[in-house]
Amino acid sequence: MDNSPARGTRDLLPAAVATRDRVLGLIQDVYRRFGYQRIETPALERIERLTAGQGGENEKLLFRILRRGLNEQLPAGTALTELVDLGLRYDLTVPLTRFYAQYRAELPQPFRSFQFGPVWRAERPQKGRYRQFYQCDIDLVGEPSVLAEAELIEATTQALAAAGLDGTTVRLSDRRFLAALATAAGVGVEAQAGFFVTLDKLDKIGWDGVSAELVDDRGLPAEVVAAARDKIESLTDLPAGKVADVLADVVPGLPEQVAADLATTADYLAALDGVTWAFDPTLVRGMGYYTGQIFEITHPAAAGSIAGGGRYDELIGRSLGTEVPACGFSIGFERIVDLVGTTPAGERIAVLYEADVPVARALAAARRLREQGVVASPVRRSGKFGAQLTRLESWGFTAFLPLVPGQDTDELPQPRPLGRDGTPR
Amino acid sequence: MDNSPARGTRDLLPAAVATRDRVLGLIQDVYRRFGYQRIETPALERIERLTAGQGGENEKLLFRILRRGLNEQLPAGTALTELVDLGLRYDLTVPLTRFYAQYRAELPQPFRSFQFGPVWRAERPQKGRYRQFYQCDIDLVGEPSVLAEAELIEATTQALAAAGLDGTTVRLSDRRFLAALATAAGVGVEAQAGFFVTLDKLDKIGWDGVSAELVDDRGLPAEVVAAARDKIESLTDLPAGKVADVLADVVPGLPEQVAADLATTADYLAALDGVTWAFDPTLVRGMGYYTGQIFEITHPAAAGSIAGGGRYDELIGRSLGTEVPACGFSIGFERIVDLVGTTPAGERIAVLYEADVPVARALAAARRLREQGVVASPVRRSGKFGAQLTRLESWGFTAFLPLVPGQDTDELPQPRPLGRDGTPR
Repeated sequence: MDNSPARGTRDLLPAAVATRDRVLGLIQDVYRRFGYQRIETPALERIERLTAGQGGENEKLLFRILRRGLNEQLPAGTALTELVDLGLRYDLTVPLTRFYAQYRAELPQPFRSFQFGPVWRAERPQKGRYRQFYQCDIDLVGEPSVLAEAELIEATTQALAAAGLDGTTVRLSDRRFLAALATAAGVGVEAQAGFFVTLDKLDKIGWDGVSAELVDDRGLPAEVVAAARDKIESLTDLPAGKVADVLADVVPGLPEQVAADLATTADYLAALDGVTWAFDPTLVRGMGYYTGQIFEITHPAAAGSIAGGGRYDELIGRSLGTEVPACGFSIGFERIVDLVGTTPAGERIAVLYEADVPVARALAAARRLREQGVVASPVRRSGKFGAQLTRLESWGFTAFLPLVPGQDTDELPQPRPLGRDGTPR
Repeated sequence: MDNSPARGTRDLLPAAVATRDRVLGLIQDVYRRFGYQRIETPALERIERLTAGQGGENEKLLFRILRRGLNEQLPAGTALTELVDLGLRYDLTVPLTRFYAQYRAELPQPFRSFQFGPVWRAERPQKGRYRQFYQCDIDLVGEPSVLAEAELIEATTQALAAAGLDGTTVRLSDRRFLAALATAAGVGVEAQAGFFVTLDKLDKIGWDGVSAELVDDRGLPAEVVAAARDKIESLTDLPAGKVADVLADVVPGLPEQVAADLATTADYLAALDGVTWAFDPTLVRGMGYYTGQIFEITHPAAAGSIAGGGRYDELIGRSLGTEVPACGFSIGFERIVDLVGTTPAGERIAVLYEADVPVARALAAARRLREQGVVASPVRRSGKFGAQLTRLESWGFTAFLPLVPGQDTDELPQPRPLGRDGTPR
């Protein structure tokens, strides 16, 4: 019988879960102190909501769920879509927008949401990618000002630092800046979406690749591409104090408020202890719903970003009918648990009882150890003594307490630390 | 647009999540000290495993998932089963048996497993029942002796007490005892499954209802039913010290080891501080896979049980090929979070800033409060002052710190406690 988990999914063994729980606890504690409150939505959403265009490419990766009560034999001409009413969520943003639209009247204004939970995408299985994985999102809903961006970035850099990920860099840009830059370089509005898709590949294919794709595949004039590149390069390594002025200079069509907001975020990040930041004019971020500032966090030990987010002022309006400003930041939880070390286990004592020791005595000995504050579990003596001690140690026990028949029940022996072959360390 | 969660599911707002997280934390901490380690398996399992008969009635309530890559238009004569390869798990026991069979060589022996996670059942929506709900299971795998039962019950009563549920009663029985009792009363082996199904309804329909159903619907002779009732009534309120003797007397065919094991568990529970227990000869528990002792925990404030479990020595063998003894206990998490009170919120301060206070100042004020150990979030001043303070209080803020332009930035005002209309409490 095949006892492996379903294709593309994985089981988590105790050591992995302990690390994940520890990292989650550290992150959540930081977010909690910023006032973010955890909410939870079901894994299942109506199929109409999951296929409404909000998820981009993710909508092609849906796990779709059969209606209940269907006849087992289908009539000719049945379309798959008739059979499906639900799907598994592919992210936590779609559920959040529904949640906010549903409970707005009861929620604080602005609402600080923390979410942690599994999402599902039927991606082609590959190393390190799973069809069920966890997302860890904070969102600040109802805050129109750049306070949202600054707070989300501050909270997330602190959360990552708490999890042990120091030395991160925040990369900052703005969708409205990108549009103005493209326009200033001569990229027409209708060509801009494709321009950004290609620009997004810069870290993978370099300027030669980007230029070739823009000219050969997208048909942009070479001088337009050169102008865009010039502008982008002149905006690299922009110091915080100069952001507004240089942007106004290089991207003349950029609304003043956009430049001022970018400068506010930049100044704020520049003044924060322990935060490295950079204006990144090549940052695009995939999702179509961003409307303002966008940001990512990178770490020297990780390829790509370990967190990303941005402002999406129009998304909640699609559910609610009224526009509500919103901004979010998502930590790549699966990526960061791979970066942090494993969790050192605490003291664990095995009450190693001979088979003829009464059950009640073995349990009582474990209870007395727990009352002293340590983790304690009865384990029956079996096989060669040394070999069993080696196994106990490999399972994470740090000491053992031997119980044999006829011992004084009031006077427990001292636990003996576990070293190789049971010799004290 | 309909923003409610999918039919039969629900969203959890911050206050509900806070209570659940608190209760889970208290339970998990007790189980952790007993040496139980959390594992996690995916929500999705192969459909063959979910329809192998292990789940009883739950298998009829499956959420089935469409294969990926199907043509949207189905050929004539397609059967539903051809379209499905996965389903959502309906419990945590099926995944545990698969998990143990897969990783046995790496796991401690015996293995103490803790699981907490959502399961899905497409039940007809009704008040208080949801199609996604959480289960909270501990299992002790690889321990053949009654140490498993005694430890699981001790740990679970402690976990419930830690969550605030005192005054619980443990009800204990044994599947082998039930079979011997039925045989002794004259119920043939082939009629016993139906006999137990009806007996299981005793707390709902009483002895009159049970007798009528056994005689009229199941065709048992009235004198057999009367004999069974006699035996059962003579076993009610059995004191711990008498369990073995009385059982031997009333149920002559009962194997001595079964009676001795029941006596061991009973004696152990009777000696535990703060535990009330009862031998319950009418306890059946629904699942077909139990092979030995079964148990439930009841609480005065809850109809039915709040936790249940038992020994299932044959289940893992179906996956592994080798029989492995196992015993488990499952807390009805959704039921107990309804019994415990809501979680008192801690101190939360709103930094109430006028719109023309710079973003960096509002954020810096919140940061300084957090550095003093409290939860702090900026909230923009809006509307009537008193009304906003009332709203802040209703959202769980306990104090506010007013920020206006031109204040000394080094010297923060003292936070003011929130009372009705913003008057200090």
